[in-house]
Amino acid sequence: MTDLAQTLNDIGKRAKAAARDLARATDTEKSKALLAIATKLDDSHATLIEANQRDLDAARERGLADAMMDRLKLSAKSLATMTEGLRQIAALPDPVGSLSNTTVRPNGMRVSQMRVPLGVIGIIYESRPNVTIDAAALCLKSGNACILRGGSEAFHSNVALADILREALSETTLPADAVQLIQTTDRDAVGYLVKMTDYVDVIVPRGGKSLIRRLQDEARVPLIKHLDGNCHVYVDAHADLDRALSIAINAKTYRYGICGAMETLLVHAEVADKFLPKLEAEMSRHGVELRGCEKSRNICPAMKPATDADWAEEYLAPVLAVRVVNSIEQAMDHIATWGSGHTDAIVTQDIDAANRFEREVDSSSVYVNLPTCFADGFEYGLGAEIGISTNRLHARGPVGLEGLTTQKWVLHGEGQTRG
Amino acid sequence: MTDLAQTLNDIGKRAKAAARDLARATDTEKSKALLAIATKLDDSHATLIEANQRDLDAARERGLADAMMDRLKLSAKSLATMTEGLRQIAALPDPVGSLSNTTVRPNGMRVSQMRVPLGVIGIIYESRPNVTIDAAALCLKSGNACILRGGSEAFHSNVALADILREALSETTLPADAVQLIQTTDRDAVGYLVKMTDYVDVIVPRGGKSLIRRLQDEARVPLIKHLDGNCHVYVDAHADLDRALSIAINAKTYRYGICGAMETLLVHAEVADKFLPKLEAEMSRHGVELRGCEKSRNICPAMKPATDADWAEEYLAPVLAVRVVNSIEQAMDHIATWGSGHTDAIVTQDIDAANRFEREVDSSSVYVNLPTCFADGFEYGLGAEIGISTNRLHARGPVGLEGLTTQKWVLHGEGQTRG
Repeated sequence: MTDLAQTLNDIGKRAKAAARDLARATDTEKSKALLAIATKLDDSHATLIEANQRDLDAARERGLADAMMDRLKLSAKSLATMTEGLRQIAALPDPVGSLSNTTVRPNGMRVSQMRVPLGVIGIIYESRPNVTIDAAALCLKSGNACILRGGSEAFHSNVALADILREALSETTLPADAVQLIQTTDRDAVGYLVKMTDYVDVIVPRGGKSLIRRLQDEARVPLIKHLDGNCHVYVDAHADLDRALSIAINAKTYRYGICGAMETLLVHAEVADKFLPKLEAEMSRHGVELRGCEKSRNICPAMKPATDADWAEEYLAPVLAVRVVNSIEQAMDHIATWGSGHTDAIVTQDIDAANRFEREVDSSSVYVNLPTCFADGFEYGLGAEIGISTNRLHARGPVGLEGLTTQKWVLHGEGQTRG
Repeated sequence: MTDLAQTLNDIGKRAKAAARDLARATDTEKSKALLAIATKLDDSHATLIEANQRDLDAARERGLADAMMDRLKLSAKSLATMTEGLRQIAALPDPVGSLSNTTVRPNGMRVSQMRVPLGVIGIIYESRPNVTIDAAALCLKSGNACILRGGSEAFHSNVALADILREALSETTLPADAVQLIQTTDRDAVGYLVKMTDYVDVIVPRGGKSLIRRLQDEARVPLIKHLDGNCHVYVDAHADLDRALSIAINAKTYRYGICGAMETLLVHAEVADKFLPKLEAEMSRHGVELRGCEKSRNICPAMKPATDADWAEEYLAPVLAVRVVNSIEQAMDHIATWGSGHTDAIVTQDIDAANRFEREVDSSSVYVNLPTCFADGFEYGLGAEIGISTNRLHARGPVGLEGLTTQKWVLHGEGQTRG
């Protein structure tokens, strides 16, 4: 075993031991620990901003883009947001230990399912150092140990944040090893982490698509992952067109860069004549470029032509593909063919169309008369989210505390025997 | 692409198309299809027994062991059991489409989770041809398309059974491609199947550990898998010893070969003197060999000595490892160290000990005052099971229809916008 493999192995072993302690911690203990971390964070602004400055200096020297510098930067304000997040997560209901689906079998034994932590969660993330706190907090509250692996550009910031986490934990009843940061920038560390099936129960990658695709190939540990968000709004023949317009504008322009942003608008041929010119005018006011199918361009000749590449594209930019369809079936076929199974919406007043779309569109979130930009754990009432999963198994869609737990069966009897 | 890869690719494509149709099928359609299969099966005994005879002849020539021949054989009785299974599955409640966890957000939008099929399920199994019918029936009822890959020794039987499935389906409203059998004995086919992430949503391997371990290495599609069943019964200081004895005997002797069979008995030192001689007498009456720790052998010197290898072993045979522990903590440590996270039980009258064990033992099933041999979907009230999962994510423990489904988020609004 190489030194690096040995280091990772030791981290894994310690995490697994910590996970056992965490699994039996009460909600009070976990919440107290989160508040202790918040207090320590409040007291450590100077240290953190200093550590962060080293990352910023190094980044500037390497010529990091401004957007990346922004993500990297810690300020009194961003630190206060992290503290506030800790307090919010502390106040959320603890899913661990709850029993559900209890039935009594004919022989009198009682069968239930109990919610329990997943165990050890590996978090692999890129430049934002706030993930160090946010992810650790969600893992702690749900009773999981975590192994954090941040981006090399945020190295000093992450080390300083992890120190705070562990110092605060060491003053509580929870084990400090509940949170461990991999303190090497060796890229091979990730390769080991995602293969340690003996110690790590799940990997949550938070980063760009190239990271996710690499992990999908390499990982032996299951991933809770987020791939593409190619989201659609379908304006049905029976849509309220004013509502459709406001939904479409919000879905596209609320924020261009989020995974729930609408990337293609589908509109039924019966209403396209009326709807598309209004859409074009409003979108143009917002500076959104439209790329349309042939039928769309017959109605709005100023649109650029859309190709298949546009149906497939997650723009994350002020660009929208537009297609006229002849039926709800054609709309759903388009979504099945080109969509990414993230979030898709129908705008309609017709209850049958709404029911069909809701039932048949195979996406992690399906909306009726709502813009796709609502795809977010806070909006769904989860209180917090570690990400949005495009997996089909286990957690699908926004992942909150419950998505970081699993269920075990618990059976109670009075000595019944089988057979 | 090789011919084989192309063949698998085509199967995958057809399965995915069929899965879309199946996802929107009503329960009535699915149940009717299952009953149509049952009727056709009833009418095809002669054909099936003839096809099976070809497999049996080939197996005899290759000198297959008697136990394997037994598994391979189809008889009027085993065919009737398959038909009965189809009728039972048809009568189960359909999980698809049910809504849960509905909340209304402050802005008035309604957030729910809807149960939906997983999509395309690959089933890889070994000698028992009845799996062809059982697995297909569970997949159909839960709205999933399936791709079946049976063992080469049951090739002719499986082809004949798959023909019946597809013929029966072609007379219903469901697509015949809902069930496809991979009709090649080329071992590479499995390698392709478990990597087709574009078409296959989950693989359920039903076979020996070597198959599972191979798939764990090769698969890119998630597995719902079953590894070891190293199950424990812990007889607490506050156990009712008569109850403990009957639980222990049942847990070991109900059937030696099942994954829920007890493999190690742990007994608290305070009651070991009284309990172990009774256990030894009863187990000896059943022909079960005991292998004990030093303390056990001080009480029952006839026991063979147990080594670490015994704590790790899943005997699946009339052999039992026995260890005296000084506390419930030591019992739980033993289970955490040596157990496989399958099914573990405590026998106790003390409610605190029961609660601790239930909460802290990290197994897919944890029992209080029940023998581990209850680990079975039928016993839990699932109506049927496709297997017992030792995964932590998604389905854990016995997997019934619900384990073959997932949930999507469904949001309803009246044009609310974000921000």
